[in-house]
Amino acid sequence: MQTIGAVIFEGFEMLDYFGPLEMFAMHREHFKIVAVGETGHAVASSGGPAVVPDARFDEGDTYDVLLVPGGKGTREEVENAAMLDWLQQASAKAEVVTSVCTGSALLARAGLLEGRAATTNKLAFDWVREISRTDTVDWKPKARWVKDGKFYTSSGVSAGTDMSLQVIADLLGEAAAEKAAFWAEYEANRDADNDPFAVEE
Amino acid sequence: MQTIGAVIFEGFEMLDYFGPLEMFAMHREHFKIVAVGETGHAVASSGGPAVVPDARFDEGDTYDVLLVPGGKGTREEVENAAMLDWLQQASAKAEVVTSVCTGSALLARAGLLEGRAATTNKLAFDWVREISRTDTVDWKPKARWVKDGKFYTSSGVSAGTDMSLQVIADLLGEAAAEKAAFWAEYEANRDADNDPFAVEE
Repeated sequence: MQTIGAVIFEGFEMLDYFGPLEMFAMHREHFKIVAVGETGHAVASSGGPAVVPDARFDEGDTYDVLLVPGGKGTREEVENAAMLDWLQQASAKAEVVTSVCTGSALLARAGLLEGRAATTNKLAFDWVREISRTDTVDWKPKARWVKDGKFYTSSGVSAGTDMSLQVIADLLGEAAAEKAAFWAEYEANRDADNDPFAVEE
Repeated sequence: MQTIGAVIFEGFEMLDYFGPLEMFAMHREHFKIVAVGETGHAVASSGGPAVVPDARFDEGDTYDVLLVPGGKGTREEVENAAMLDWLQQASAKAEVVTSVCTGSALLARAGLLEGRAATTNKLAFDWVREISRTDTVDWKPKARWVKDGKFYTSSGVSAGTDMSLQVIADLLGEAAAEKAAFWAEYEANRDADNDPFAVEE
């Protein structure tokens, strides 16, 4: 059994979060999903319903896989020391760290992407690069997702679902990734280099 | 402005719900999302985090578009009179009624699909047909989604996202559907007849 520590914050993007979680949930005999929030209070998603955290930052639990969604709330969270501290501590203990969309800006601001290749939402590409306040991240303008060491960063929103299948393939094997997509009737993009939404540099 | 009344119940499937809601949220100047539950209590999704209802069945509000997800919880909900009553009353007032995956079993048991064509999850196809307790639904074994009058029923999990783009196209025009998919970096299947997960009859 591996635990997925899936962080929520005010204004997180719904599909960034629930697309990957759905794929992990297809193998619920192997993955346990835990919604982690700064406090125990329910957190409103961007444009949608509120989600209840199962655990708090200050509990300091260890998670095998981290999921960091994007959304308009990242514009506040890049300045939130409690978030950046938790990301640093939880990442140090995790086997795999993933982000979707502008969630990579949080990883970058926490200093976790120094010297690494990464990607992000193609419509917020320049914002992420600037707000990250580092020149050492190699931001990829054309990538459905990027894997560098234990860090998987994905492109915008729906790309997170494809990235999560790569994580499943790496942890449980390609057949497990194919099964997750099949059971969810998901027409997956299994090629990290196939990015229909790439931006021109 | 149109309201989306998106029903939740214990054991609803995450992506059935949040895939379509993400697409509607891409046009948040036009759609307001309301999570509707039988009570005001948070409801655990299938394998994932709990969601807080914004409104209750007994408030009797009118919604322009209904979204009914599937998930293992439908096996309880097909026997839940409060759910079936609410579906009947809310559907009568709605302009569009949608279901994802086994959510169509709830519409069928509420008597809303009599004489209509519909589809559902391909892995639960026979279960849905039996539990519906009606011979008058024309269940389609090969369809990403089916539109019959104001009722849109989709195939399993991820198919709901494609169906929601058809609803957006019908309500706001094809360009709006294309924009929603583009902004969410979603590689959409815009062809209702293109069903890679079709079952043999």
